[in-house]
Amino acid sequence: MEVTNQSNRPIWYDTNDHTVKIIDQRVLPHKYSVEPLKTVDDTIRAIQQMYVRGAPLIGVTAAYGVYLIVNKRAGDIEYLKHECKRLKDARPTAVNLAWAVDTMLTSILEEPDPKKHLELSRVKAGEIAEAEVDRCYQIGRHGAELIKNIAQTKKNTPVNVLTHCNAGWLACVEYGTATAPVYVAHDQGIHVHVWVDETRPLNQGARLTAWELGKKNVPHSVIPDNTGGHLMQHGMVDLVIVGTDRTTYTGDVANKIGTYLKALAAKDNHVPFYVALPSSTFDWNIRDGIGEIPIEKRDPDEVRLVQGLYNNQTCEVLVPPDDSPCVNYAFDVTPARLVTGLITEKGICEASENAILAMFPEQKK
Amino acid sequence: MEVTNQSNRPIWYDTNDHTVKIIDQRVLPHKYSVEPLKTVDDTIRAIQQMYVRGAPLIGVTAAYGVYLIVNKRAGDIEYLKHECKRLKDARPTAVNLAWAVDTMLTSILEEPDPKKHLELSRVKAGEIAEAEVDRCYQIGRHGAELIKNIAQTKKNTPVNVLTHCNAGWLACVEYGTATAPVYVAHDQGIHVHVWVDETRPLNQGARLTAWELGKKNVPHSVIPDNTGGHLMQHGMVDLVIVGTDRTTYTGDVANKIGTYLKALAAKDNHVPFYVALPSSTFDWNIRDGIGEIPIEKRDPDEVRLVQGLYNNQTCEVLVPPDDSPCVNYAFDVTPARLVTGLITEKGICEASENAILAMFPEQKK
Repeated sequence: MEVTNQSNRPIWYDTNDHTVKIIDQRVLPHKYSVEPLKTVDDTIRAIQQMYVRGAPLIGVTAAYGVYLIVNKRAGDIEYLKHECKRLKDARPTAVNLAWAVDTMLTSILEEPDPKKHLELSRVKAGEIAEAEVDRCYQIGRHGAELIKNIAQTKKNTPVNVLTHCNAGWLACVEYGTATAPVYVAHDQGIHVHVWVDETRPLNQGARLTAWELGKKNVPHSVIPDNTGGHLMQHGMVDLVIVGTDRTTYTGDVANKIGTYLKALAAKDNHVPFYVALPSSTFDWNIRDGIGEIPIEKRDPDEVRLVQGLYNNQTCEVLVPPDDSPCVNYAFDVTPARLVTGLITEKGICEASENAILAMFPEQKK
Repeated sequence: MEVTNQSNRPIWYDTNDHTVKIIDQRVLPHKYSVEPLKTVDDTIRAIQQMYVRGAPLIGVTAAYGVYLIVNKRAGDIEYLKHECKRLKDARPTAVNLAWAVDTMLTSILEEPDPKKHLELSRVKAGEIAEAEVDRCYQIGRHGAELIKNIAQTKKNTPVNVLTHCNAGWLACVEYGTATAPVYVAHDQGIHVHVWVDETRPLNQGARLTAWELGKKNVPHSVIPDNTGGHLMQHGMVDLVIVGTDRTTYTGDVANKIGTYLKALAAKDNHVPFYVALPSSTFDWNIRDGIGEIPIEKRDPDEVRLVQGLYNNQTCEVLVPPDDSPCVNYAFDVTPARLVTGLITEKGICEASENAILAMFPEQKK
């Protein structure tokens, strides 16, 4: 993923100064800023304040956070466990956070020699990152087949893919999840155009997905979140692909607030609705997504204030009256019945318990 | 409609200086500015540049515009006709504009004594305004019954009404259409809370509906347009009421883009979805809303730039990358099958050809 004069990943270990570096995604697209993570507190702040966001990237960042814990007090197991718990509590919805921290912790605790913990945790965090890259590429490979099949039915018009929020390489490490099929198809010379939901309140679509796609010269148009239904009614969307923050083993999909509305419109207009996810995003314990997945309620200021460029400076403007309350739910859950299929690193399957467990038999209880 | 220290209408005739006064809605909610309309040119500019908006208010403003024409050259019938034509051309879409100008012109031409034209035109414009107020009040009276019925099933919790865009008194003269049932119920002491869709791209919900409701002390919360589906899944919406720009005699509803998505979510969660409209908003010629109602495509800058308050000044910030294209459809069409009912000044009816023509039998061909 080449970005001119810029990092091609949203997180990396910098061997020069032995820190972890991240792109500060809060200020994209109008400013490109790299921040170091030196401590677990830096890591928690980066996750909570959304310097980094997106389920896979939160997982990888947390893995490096565990490395930073060890880096501070290698061998202090009580401290390690205590800080890992704090790190896991940084945000509630993305299952990758807890998964990555637990995976790191298990590896470290299996190594009896505390002197090896620092190197082990750095290597393990890197492995988690590389595993995400590989999973995203495999997702792209499988999903590109869907796009290719649609392209064969169209003449001189692009395949129109609608996506919500940012499930691109900025949310992962490379390729992304929802965008991976688009990038792979684009690289194969297939004519793809992406409808980018701006994704209020934080505008990750307008700010991040549009920026990503632009850097890769993928044709795209930014639209208000209200627009998708109209486009689908008029045959202007061939395929919806979104990411997810947590998907139950029964196929219910938690993703950025508003995803459910697009799934309803897709169903109503016979547009295929796919969810792209690495297996690390499955929650193997939850059956009922709507009833059981915790939905984060975030700061109302994210709704009240809109960030953008004014006089060449990034600033925030107040939109509603100052005394009108705002409410900010970050995610919603799309029930499995609205999902055409799941694009995983292992292939595409139905959003149903049987199909998911057939693809991941190791998860059978 | 009491607004503390402010006008209780978006337009009024000022007996002190014999001008027409309007609220400049472009700069709400952060600035309350009253502008005088002294000439027909002032009136045309106010309509074109959207100092005033909303079909009923555009009609009333045009009626006062005719008064201002007479005020300049009472008795000059050629001048009157010429200027009326110019006024009718101010905006092409709102049917109320041409209707109001024609109604005014007919009344004036029926009066042979030119000395009576000025007083007659002022009175007639006032009557047109009062007729809108009455229609909106009747809509409110009928719609409030729906809210009252729901209130009787709830204990110590408010009736939660979700609305999209601004179909309030700012768009009409008093009460509004979609908001009228809320205001009437609130005045009756029923505990109502309104979920206000911010309504991208122009944020009429966050800017105008929230301001209106706040001035009347109606409890409300501004939410991103993405949020309604999640709220409905969790039983947090009892009723959806929206306005409409055009409704076919078969019950298909054109309204601000995104309305269709809320109607889908309401259907999926068994939440009643009502459309409030005066009979003047029916299109008695169109059968198929999705196929036949033309959807206006507006300036992409309305998507790219978001207006708000920064350093105590109203300004616009750029959200997406400067080189990412944006697309801006202003309306969508909600098919009749998703609409629970229509709230008109004559009462509530099903969104079906039979029910609509039974309520308005004079329209039968």
